[in-house]
Amino acid sequence: MIIIDTKSKIPLYEQLYQQIKEQILSGQLTANQKLPTTRELAADYMISRNTVINAYSQLEVEGFIKSIGGSGYYVEQLNFVPPISPNPSFSYANDIVYTENIHSIYDFQYGDLDYNCYKIKAWRKCITDAFDKISLQTKLSYDSPQGLLDLRRTLSNYLYISRGVKCSPDQIIITSGHQYSLSIIANIFSSENWIFAMEDPGYNGTHTIFKQNNYSIIPVPVENDGILVPELQQLQNTLLYITPSHQFPMGSILSIAKRLAILNWAGNNNGYIIEDDYDSELRYNSLPIASLQSIDRNNRTIYLGTFSKSLSPDLRIAFLVLPETLLPLYREKYQLVNCSVPSFLQIALTDFMLSGNYQKHINTLRTHFKKKYRLIINLLKKNNSSDITIHGSDTGSHFILSINTDLDQQAIIDRFAKNNIRVYPTDIYWINKCQCPKNQILVGFGSIPIENISKGMELFLNTLNDISFKL
Amino acid sequence: MIIIDTKSKIPLYEQLYQQIKEQILSGQLTANQKLPTTRELAADYMISRNTVINAYSQLEVEGFIKSIGGSGYYVEQLNFVPPISPNPSFSYANDIVYTENIHSIYDFQYGDLDYNCYKIKAWRKCITDAFDKISLQTKLSYDSPQGLLDLRRTLSNYLYISRGVKCSPDQIIITSGHQYSLSIIANIFSSENWIFAMEDPGYNGTHTIFKQNNYSIIPVPVENDGILVPELQQLQNTLLYITPSHQFPMGSILSIAKRLAILNWAGNNNGYIIEDDYDSELRYNSLPIASLQSIDRNNRTIYLGTFSKSLSPDLRIAFLVLPETLLPLYREKYQLVNCSVPSFLQIALTDFMLSGNYQKHINTLRTHFKKKYRLIINLLKKNNSSDITIHGSDTGSHFILSINTDLDQQAIIDRFAKNNIRVYPTDIYWINKCQCPKNQILVGFGSIPIENISKGMELFLNTLNDISFKL
Repeated sequence: MIIIDTKSKIPLYEQLYQQIKEQILSGQLTANQKLPTTRELAADYMISRNTVINAYSQLEVEGFIKSIGGSGYYVEQLNFVPPISPNPSFSYANDIVYTENIHSIYDFQYGDLDYNCYKIKAWRKCITDAFDKISLQTKLSYDSPQGLLDLRRTLSNYLYISRGVKCSPDQIIITSGHQYSLSIIANIFSSENWIFAMEDPGYNGTHTIFKQNNYSIIPVPVENDGILVPELQQLQNTLLYITPSHQFPMGSILSIAKRLAILNWAGNNNGYIIEDDYDSELRYNSLPIASLQSIDRNNRTIYLGTFSKSLSPDLRIAFLVLPETLLPLYREKYQLVNCSVPSFLQIALTDFMLSGNYQKHINTLRTHFKKKYRLIINLLKKNNSSDITIHGSDTGSHFILSINTDLDQQAIIDRFAKNNIRVYPTDIYWINKCQCPKNQILVGFGSIPIENISKGMELFLNTLNDISFKL
Repeated sequence: MIIIDTKSKIPLYEQLYQQIKEQILSGQLTANQKLPTTRELAADYMISRNTVINAYSQLEVEGFIKSIGGSGYYVEQLNFVPPISPNPSFSYANDIVYTENIHSIYDFQYGDLDYNCYKIKAWRKCITDAFDKISLQTKLSYDSPQGLLDLRRTLSNYLYISRGVKCSPDQIIITSGHQYSLSIIANIFSSENWIFAMEDPGYNGTHTIFKQNNYSIIPVPVENDGILVPELQQLQNTLLYITPSHQFPMGSILSIAKRLAILNWAGNNNGYIIEDDYDSELRYNSLPIASLQSIDRNNRTIYLGTFSKSLSPDLRIAFLVLPETLLPLYREKYQLVNCSVPSFLQIALTDFMLSGNYQKHINTLRTHFKKKYRLIINLLKKNNSSDITIHGSDTGSHFILSINTDLDQQAIIDRFAKNNIRVYPTDIYWINKCQCPKNQILVGFGSIPIENISKGMELFLNTLNDISFKL
């Protein structure tokens, strides 16, 4: 039984095709059964013969039926006819639902920017200009697997001036984010021959990539001025991931003595250092600290950067700088892998940097973040200095707070939440979870608008007062 | 000796900082050496004392010098001082240089679109609208690791209607390209326990990802209606990559009998099928063929799609649809991995699809490509039918041409190039290179403007006449 609905938007031939197909798949029409001729079927359903021919052609092309010259159409012999199951019902369990009242909460989250301090018009213009430019060009991203040369040239100059990084554009690879950069490193090396070591605590999004790639992961404890260097001495053939400019999440700066010791270790033990310089531009009382890469003379440092912290986490543009010695290995593995960043975004970013707007934006951002940071820190110090310890270094968009309290992290977070304040755990950043102080929380100030800080901090300080011991 | 250039754009304190740092690193200033006081240095160089204080603070923060209360500043004890090497000289050997005369060549390349048939205004508007929307929202891409729910919902409906794919938005993962999708699959499974098999010839960009991830790769020969199914019988625990709707590069359609046999094989041998449906929307004489996923009742098909062929290769948006049974494994490995596609592009694409502009664009593209395809094929058949065989199926944006000639692929390509025609090799798609016919070339027609085809084909046919045997 075929039902043809002439009022449906679905073309008639498609209705016919679908129903015959379902009848074959469900076994209603059986192997070698003769189908009505196109003329008969057209007459039966009062449709044009061309409609039937179209449907039969499609079924034939797909191998459901065969035409036997002169004799007509027959159902094909199909060995296995699976039953048809109903459509799956849709569930959205794993998705976050955005509620309207999110804005009544003072959210001290990490990793985002307040768009009020954005050079938004200039950036928007770069995007539309780039879009107009690219539509006349073609598949640039296929032709430049490491990213567009213009962007890599611009970046090479910028990195030298701003971070002391010495590299040619050939050493730069543009990627769609920090984790993509890491997956390239994980692929260039191999989990069979290399160990992955990382600072503990450290960024959990880094950990996950090397775990995914089956590396053995060695945690290296962090003290006030960075990782414990003696722990490295037993490690050979190791990739060491560190955040020297601003240890994540603890906020310390790796001292030059340790930097030199780590470079020394790498040179003597076939180690490579993965230097993640994620937010070095956001430094408030001094110049950004020169990168580790800039003082490495032995090609032992892989430098990672991102535009997520300085421009937008939603841009999905990051990069890595490989030592020249690793380029042949990279090219062997990535020769046929396309760049994952749209060219028009790469062109937009290049224009944004070359026009000076990026530097202006960074300056604005720095001034803006510095104000927010100092405002928060001053309020904390004035009101609760004896109840807390602030870990950080006048840098970036977050700090860690230790509170004199018996409560654990989740209980602290819950108490803040009762006062409409969102603060965040730090235990997710510990590999050795048991080493994580119970009384620490992470406070971010990137996305909270500056005008909300005073009101938010009032509630913040009240909560602190409630939960902390008085000494 | 320090040189302060008051006319330089570099701030004075930075000049001072840099030069003292270099002197420490190069050994000119030695450990524990006392530095001039800030007052002395300011007087010596006729700069403000604050400038010197700024420079010293920076050096102290980085651990190059230490201040000893009351006594002044001293150079730190650094264990290892590497020599300073000169800047690397930049080379651009690996980059393609775009020349102006590229447009005088008739380029039958594969993988790109002619932007003349683009709904460019509607798409541009979606991009700018999305940009304006996103700038008020925040880091959406961090919150939706599988991609924005709205896009996944839209895609889920679209795939059901257009390709028969049955899936919930939960099963869809938005990625920054075909290869990124494949790397997720390579990561979910493991090269230790799984074999990767793929059609031979097949897409070399697929091969490279599984090779990178250390999989054993088994080539499965392709005949006229798709891969040789009996070859599968010896394979267990295997991921099988195929292009059923339009075999790449040979152009055949996988028959329904083979589809069922392959599904059967997968069910009985713990196999998974990676169905790459890269250009199924570009079909000229019939409906797109329903996907393999749509007739799989056993959760054995991973469906891959891309917007590279239908919208733009530069968009860098693709997706995969996982069977529900693989979702727990995926979530375990990818819980902390961010989506690599900017949200504003995801929002733009959602709007483009929901507004009906995507479907209109596909229709335009199909009509346009069909015209080009038929024009080329008719010219070939009329003029050289005895010298050539065309492999393809009225689908997509390329076909394969076998030429009656003794020349090998490179020689054929060179002869075309002499007449300003670019055609492309097929041997790069063969795993068993020796199986690749010497006399085949790949002809793409996606990017060549329709108005250039007649003139281009004149030169094309002349070349064919020159190089082929007359039978």
